[in-house]
Amino acid sequence: MCRWLAYSGTPVRVDELIVTPKHSLIDQSLHSTLGAETTNGDGFGLGWYGVGSSPGVFHSVEPAWNNRNLRELARHLVSPMVFAHIRASTGGPIQQTNCHPFRFGPWLWMHNGLIREFRTIKRDLVLAVDPELFPFIEGTTDSETFFFLALTFGLRDDPPAAVERAVGLIEDVGRAHGIEHPIQMTVATGDGERLWAFRYSSEGSSRSLFVSTAIDTLRAQYPNNPRLWEVGEGTRIVVSEPFGGLVGAWNEVPESSWVVIEPGADRIEAFTPRPPQR
Amino acid sequence: MCRWLAYSGTPVRVDELIVTPKHSLIDQSLHSTLGAETTNGDGFGLGWYGVGSSPGVFHSVEPAWNNRNLRELARHLVSPMVFAHIRASTGGPIQQTNCHPFRFGPWLWMHNGLIREFRTIKRDLVLAVDPELFPFIEGTTDSETFFFLALTFGLRDDPPAAVERAVGLIEDVGRAHGIEHPIQMTVATGDGERLWAFRYSSEGSSRSLFVSTAIDTLRAQYPNNPRLWEVGEGTRIVVSEPFGGLVGAWNEVPESSWVVIEPGADRIEAFTPRPPQR
Amino acid sequence: MCRWLAYSGTPVRVDELIVTPKHSLIDQSLHSTLGAETTNGDGFGLGWYGVGSSPGVFHSVEPAWNNRNLRELARHLVSPMVFAHIRASTGGPIQQTNCHPFRFGPWLWMHNGLIREFRTIKRDLVLAVDPELFPFIEGTTDSETFFFLALTFGLRDDPPAAVERAVGLIEDVGRAHGIEHPIQMTVATGDGERLWAFRYSSEGSSRSLFVSTAIDTLRAQYPNNPRLWEVGEGTRIVVSEPFGGLVGAWNEVPESSWVVIEPGADRIEAFTPRPPQR
Amino acid sequence: MCRWLAYSGTPVRVDELIVTPKHSLIDQSLHSTLGAETTNGDGFGLGWYGVGSSPGVFHSVEPAWNNRNLRELARHLVSPMVFAHIRASTGGPIQQTNCHPFRFGPWLWMHNGLIREFRTIKRDLVLAVDPELFPFIEGTTDSETFFFLALTFGLRDDPPAAVERAVGLIEDVGRAHGIEHPIQMTVATGDGERLWAFRYSSEGSSRSLFVSTAIDTLRAQYPNNPRLWEVGEGTRIVVSEPFGGLVGAWNEVPESSWVVIEPGADRIEAFTPRPPQR
Repeated sequence: MCRWLAYSGTPVRVDELIVTPKHSLIDQSLHSTLGAETTNGDGFGLGWYGVGSSPGVFHSVEPAWNNRNLRELARHLVSPMVFAHIRASTGGPIQQTNCHPFRFGPWLWMHNGLIREFRTIKRDLVLAVDPELFPFIEGTTDSETFFFLALTFGLRDDPPAAVERAVGLIEDVGRAHGIEHPIQMTVATGDGERLWAFRYSSEGSSRSLFVSTAIDTLRAQYPNNPRLWEVGEGTRIVVSEPFGGLVGAWNEVPESSWVVIEPGADRIEAFTPRPPQR
Repeated sequence: MCRWLAYSGTPVRVDELIVTPKHSLIDQSLHSTLGAETTNGDGFGLGWYGVGSSPGVFHSVEPAWNNRNLRELARHLVSPMVFAHIRASTGGPIQQTNCHPFRFGPWLWMHNGLIREFRTIKRDLVLAVDPELFPFIEGTTDSETFFFLALTFGLRDDPPAAVERAVGLIEDVGRAHGIEHPIQMTVATGDGERLWAFRYSSEGSSRSLFVSTAIDTLRAQYPNNPRLWEVGEGTRIVVSEPFGGLVGAWNEVPESSWVVIEPGADRIEAFTPRPPQR
Repeated sequence: MCRWLAYSGTPVRVDELIVTPKHSLIDQSLHSTLGAETTNGDGFGLGWYGVGSSPGVFHSVEPAWNNRNLRELARHLVSPMVFAHIRASTGGPIQQTNCHPFRFGPWLWMHNGLIREFRTIKRDLVLAVDPELFPFIEGTTDSETFFFLALTFGLRDDPPAAVERAVGLIEDVGRAHGIEHPIQMTVATGDGERLWAFRYSSEGSSRSLFVSTAIDTLRAQYPNNPRLWEVGEGTRIVVSEPFGGLVGAWNEVPESSWVVIEPGADRIEAFTPRPPQR
Repeated sequence: MCRWLAYSGTPVRVDELIVTPKHSLIDQSLHSTLGAETTNGDGFGLGWYGVGSSPGVFHSVEPAWNNRNLRELARHLVSPMVFAHIRASTGGPIQQTNCHPFRFGPWLWMHNGLIREFRTIKRDLVLAVDPELFPFIEGTTDSETFFFLALTFGLRDDPPAAVERAVGLIEDVGRAHGIEHPIQMTVATGDGERLWAFRYSSEGSSRSLFVSTAIDTLRAQYPNNPRLWEVGEGTRIVVSEPFGGLVGAWNEVPESSWVVIEPGADRIEAFTPRPPQR
């Protein structure tokens, strides 16, 4: 599958997130410990907000660990919201249009997991995408089709409800084709203001997902750590796999739930797929 | 648009076809004289028959003129049927799955031209592809969708009829969306035994297409040219743009017609789109 | 050869420099009008100052005109000093380490032109590079060797003198090997504070080079153009080939001269190679 | 480091060597068990003899496990002598000119291991390359410099002596710079007729190397295995790491020795570096 990281908070140099930590995302591209695979070398992507109204994206088919451009960008970009993803393909071609994060307007989307037997049900799923949105599909992955289903079902208005409806459809179509557990997922999506993360799988045994502890809690625990006073209180990181750091800094997101990172209070709520009504 | 070459005949080293001629396909990638664009630098592809029952394909997103692997392969492959294509994108992403020739079983397919306003009518066209074939679509181009429509309409049994039906559908769908001239095309397709080439456009003003003169005719004209005695009588080349050589060696394929290169007599016949019946 | 652009002044979004102008550098990658070649499709590079003490660089072997990552970066980077280069190889391999701008510490370097018969004299030139600097050579081009010769001869202290000594050596070595006109060049180099550009060739017939007119002069000429009031007075662009815009905005840099863009008064002075003393 | 395979014998389809075996070289690119690293994802290369007098080479910077062109070529090439290499960079840039096998005329060369502190001693080693050969160095690796030293010292006439002299020089230069164990290596080289393999390291603890058992020995051991009767008696495979198959099929090459595979009797002899004489 894949590994990913999403950051929201005080503007940060991107390499502090994905390069310099001991078990950084770039290290995880060679040596993932919690992922379905050790190696995540089938391309990568970076999305960041800052200049202009829509985020920038950088995609490459090369492994993250040996890509010079990625290190250059990471060292020279500062951003308050960052998405980063390393891919381990479950079969689709290795090409930039299949690299996460995917973008539509101000929205970014990235996914770890898969839609099972996607080749079998792809046609049905693609037909369910709003015909107005259909021309904007650029690649061939299950993850991007999932994004466009979520957009079709109202991602821009109510992300949790839209993802619940998209997953409901995927499970409905999958089961109609005899697929026992149609979807396995952690997902991050955001619009530059707020950030949502989802953890779910049809089999109730989902890929790992962690959210960083609130900064004020960490400050109470580590009162002498100066780095904790440099970042604002709303700063949070959501990751497939912790990249090290302070003990107590990472909290597992519960099975079948979603998180929103936004100014004010963060929330974790239950995730319940909504099958289509007939 | 693009430039392409298809060869059938006495096994030949591929570089004699695409590298060493004065105005070779590789030269045309930088300096096309008859194409819609001078530069065809948006990737390329090579298909060849020989080892095994299905053809080999080699695709790259880099320009043909500076690709070392292409020159290496061309110098070290000998084949009796070769397809080569250089791409000038009309908008689709530059990725290997969008490079021609496309392959399905023993069939290769390549296209110069475009389906106009493809983004608008792609959904309707893709829906017309046989659901059994749908999962084998790998890229996102108009040309590959066209290939899968032809497969849907019987390419493997009767190529000219299948292409006529595919073009009939494309024109029908296009005009229903108010597109005046839905398709512009030259196409080559083959299965390792026989080779078909098509020249057509909705506006009746199609991209150039040439077929080489029969070897025995050339021998009569150039009795002292030893190269003409080294190749068998059935040897033929079909090209978007002649790559030089003997005067009288190239014959323009007429507007709205198709050619088949096969053992025995070659044929040129009229091409007439067959719209779907309701 | 190549085309390049160097910018110094009010921080600017990079796409305003290289993407949106009518005859932008990206347009020149397909349709150069003043270059030695029409097509500059053998890779490209971008260098920019901003975050951190040394500049960021982004290199790719693909043509600039179809590279999505370049457009993404250009749209999302703002910088007060930008180097951009599109390459037309004179023979060296197409690889990222051969893409300009080259970097050493805070210094960037890019070159249009060539060292003639470089294969013949490369060994002698490389031997003249300071052994302490030698390990930092990453690619195989004449242009990078030229950069390291300039560094060897004091680029970091006195750029014009260092380039004059490097060119003196190249001409000396070249002529010792019977090469009539050893070098053809326009060069840009800078350290984030100041920017130097050079125009010279052994034959006295150098590639084109232009510097933009001072902003206050343009304001006097076009008093109603609001864009001219948004940029600071020291803003200047140096280019191989003007990318359009206002009449009178571009001034040819004279044959055999160099320019420095720095706070205060810009200067143009004569360039005179300094052969090694024996 | 890296993994490699060299084959000499009855013409074979390349995928039977590098794709279809259970623990094939492509599998080893993700899951090496005997290598210094598990992952060998920093590019790969293929060299093969067949058409023309010099071998074909195919190089890519992408990982072998996800490269479609490699699988295509492997399935459609038949050759009596094949070199294949997967790279795990020890620091040099990931670019095609740094991919093994390297070629010079009919000679191929590939290396697993490294010259330690190569940046420190590269200048001295490069200076020892014959000035006539110097211009043909294309990349920047220790392995290619090693190849050109071997060529300088007579590889084309007496490969074992030439490699012994090259290693003698590398150790001599390395130790003069205080490097305790200057070289670690397994090497394969050949000219299309004969194939040599070397196993050596300054520290006397070299990377693994295996040669396949003679076919007639295997036939005696497995009289009912039909595959063993399809290949000729001289057929041999040399590998960094066995790729599975019959028990008893692989023999470790002893520490500090070299092997030649040639018509008639194969030989294994001691390898003794020859330092330069002063």
